[in-house]
Amino acid sequence: MALIVQKYGGTSVGSLDRIRNVAARIKRTRDEGNQVIAVVSAMGGVTDSLIKMAADLSANPSERELDVLLSTGEQQSIALVAMALHEIGVDAISVTGRQAGIQTTGSHTRGRILEMNPEFMQQMLADGKTLICAGFQGTTREGMIQTLGRGGSDLTAIAVAASVKADVCQILTDVDGVFTCDPRVVSNARKLPEISYDEMLEMASSGTKVMQSRSVEFAKKYGVVFEVRSSLNDNPGTLVLEEHPNMENVVIRGVSLERSQARITLTGIPDQPGMSGRILVALAEAEINLDMILSNIAHDGLARHSFTVNSNDLGRAQVALKSVLDVMAPDAKIETEAGIAKLSAVGIGMRSHSGVAATMFKALGDAGINIGMISTSEIKIAVTVDETRIEEAARAVHAAFGLDKAPA
Amino acid sequence: MALIVQKYGGTSVGSLDRIRNVAARIKRTRDEGNQVIAVVSAMGGVTDSLIKMAADLSANPSERELDVLLSTGEQQSIALVAMALHEIGVDAISVTGRQAGIQTTGSHTRGRILEMNPEFMQQMLADGKTLICAGFQGTTREGMIQTLGRGGSDLTAIAVAASVKADVCQILTDVDGVFTCDPRVVSNARKLPEISYDEMLEMASSGTKVMQSRSVEFAKKYGVVFEVRSSLNDNPGTLVLEEHPNMENVVIRGVSLERSQARITLTGIPDQPGMSGRILVALAEAEINLDMILSNIAHDGLARHSFTVNSNDLGRAQVALKSVLDVMAPDAKIETEAGIAKLSAVGIGMRSHSGVAATMFKALGDAGINIGMISTSEIKIAVTVDETRIEEAARAVHAAFGLDKAPA
Repeated sequence: MALIVQKYGGTSVGSLDRIRNVAARIKRTRDEGNQVIAVVSAMGGVTDSLIKMAADLSANPSERELDVLLSTGEQQSIALVAMALHEIGVDAISVTGRQAGIQTTGSHTRGRILEMNPEFMQQMLADGKTLICAGFQGTTREGMIQTLGRGGSDLTAIAVAASVKADVCQILTDVDGVFTCDPRVVSNARKLPEISYDEMLEMASSGTKVMQSRSVEFAKKYGVVFEVRSSLNDNPGTLVLEEHPNMENVVIRGVSLERSQARITLTGIPDQPGMSGRILVALAEAEINLDMILSNIAHDGLARHSFTVNSNDLGRAQVALKSVLDVMAPDAKIETEAGIAKLSAVGIGMRSHSGVAATMFKALGDAGINIGMISTSEIKIAVTVDETRIEEAARAVHAAFGLDKAPA
Repeated sequence: MALIVQKYGGTSVGSLDRIRNVAARIKRTRDEGNQVIAVVSAMGGVTDSLIKMAADLSANPSERELDVLLSTGEQQSIALVAMALHEIGVDAISVTGRQAGIQTTGSHTRGRILEMNPEFMQQMLADGKTLICAGFQGTTREGMIQTLGRGGSDLTAIAVAASVKADVCQILTDVDGVFTCDPRVVSNARKLPEISYDEMLEMASSGTKVMQSRSVEFAKKYGVVFEVRSSLNDNPGTLVLEEHPNMENVVIRGVSLERSQARITLTGIPDQPGMSGRILVALAEAEINLDMILSNIAHDGLARHSFTVNSNDLGRAQVALKSVLDVMAPDAKIETEAGIAKLSAVGIGMRSHSGVAATMFKALGDAGINIGMISTSEIKIAVTVDETRIEEAARAVHAAFGLDKAPA
């Protein structure tokens, strides 16, 4: 008998019929001889309609009260799923975030998990019950309701799995798993049987939108092996786990692409200590996320900084930069280029194999695709290309690393 | 500075505009120099739509899960009212049933309040906050969410008022207060400035539908003076409080009427110990509430029992009685009469004034109205009359006791 944590998202519980389907799947898992804790999100649409009410009352609603309001969505789901399970003969019980012992800290609407106290869940499991646990929320040490922000239900599932020492944690979603590349772009992309936490993190931060990075980080920190799989079929998904030696036989695990990027280049910046810091702080205060950051010194002794931002942030970034440069470096120039995309090749095999960058650049060159910026980490090589060429680029690099073929 | 508890029902918070109105009223009370704790119900319609979802999933949904589901309605209201208050500059904070320290016991969906721990509320009051507290719910000692059943938000308001030793507890509703009789029946009925707990209890149990008896009982037990008043205007309402000597100057405080009653009479019951008990148990097991109960022994030594039930229960009552009498008293007869109504005159002054029953019966006789059953308590005389004559009867008795005139 295995103890399995399953996470169902808002689409999976989006109607009463879908709730019945979720109940049937939980029962099937149970009937196969397992103990089950299902972590569920709010019914699709419920959270949005609650947010709409709050927005109607206030342009800037209190985050504490938003948490009180939004957490009701999952509380409704757990009760409804439990009722659907009772109806098919499963002894289920709903568990709120507080009852699950999820103690949170930090800001309202984006809490962090501080501590887990699974005592109640363990007692219910010992009583033979199937547990339906509210995703996305916990309570602070002071007893305040706090939600966990985007991807919060994934995080709940992984934290619950860690706290009860589950054998398996399944993140059930609308894709079949993690692929070598987006199958809508590369038709012969393969579903990966497994991927390491670090590779998953690099892919998440370079455009692969299966899971939020912090859920993966949490899983890595607590050693929770989880599986991303479809809620619509019974196909095995992708296991996400700590790397093991065999994994390095594959040079590149996958290729991610991220569109709607823009490059900002600042030239003529005096090369003085603290200058870059002040520029980055100005952007951070404007809540602009930078991605690739490159800096060097030109022959005239002036610094040159380039970075990529999301196209949507380009206007705000220019405003923020202008106000800081006007004071600090009136002679500096701001150049921008929108319409670019980022292609990343990710794999822990990169550490022990050489020539990876050469293979990637040759493939892009052979396809006649110009490379803009380049940035690397220990297990990733990322380049920018013209956005109109990103799909070609992905196919070329995917083929160059033989990702369409299963590894030997 | 007074500490005021205000209770707003589901109609009062039934839309975002009404929530803004409630917020404005709370602010006004606050601006008059008071501290406020507002107890609010779920937005009108929310509870019904949640019940509908549960009913769709199960003909007999788990009561524990119903509590988890239904308690979200009030949790949404408190967050929204708090947001509306922030928007008009009031430092408000929502308080769930658990945070309010409402510890409950008993069955799910009809919990009883076991204990109050107002520590968090007191701390928030000391911090100068206006508190918006969820009605209708608390948590058990084991941390399970439990709702308080019908009228649960009134009960919450009174329990909160008791626990924080509020100066005033206002039950804001859609009527202006408690009247000498239903103004739709007796056009010159007067709003009572005050009424004793016991009178309010007798009136609640004899058809005056302002509040559930158990909220009044709770208030009596803990000595909470509360005021029933309109949420739509600023008129003073009716104070409900422990009786004081002046109150006995009024013989009859008010007249209640209750329609849709039916009489059941059992004749030919052997006069043996335990016989009545078994009949009453059979009716109780069928969940039929008896109201007036009369018994006596006929000249043939056989017992005769009469009681009133709600017309809707008449069929089920007959089935339950038949099955018990078939075994115990095969010669007994069941007679029924539907289409009757009950008229009650209530007043603590009855204890010290004689001739009350005579005045009432004479008034009815003068109006040519026949009296069916009669039952009395220390502070109530109730009679049944033909349902078609109940309004005339109410007007006759109301006039006979001079209830249209303010007492000297």
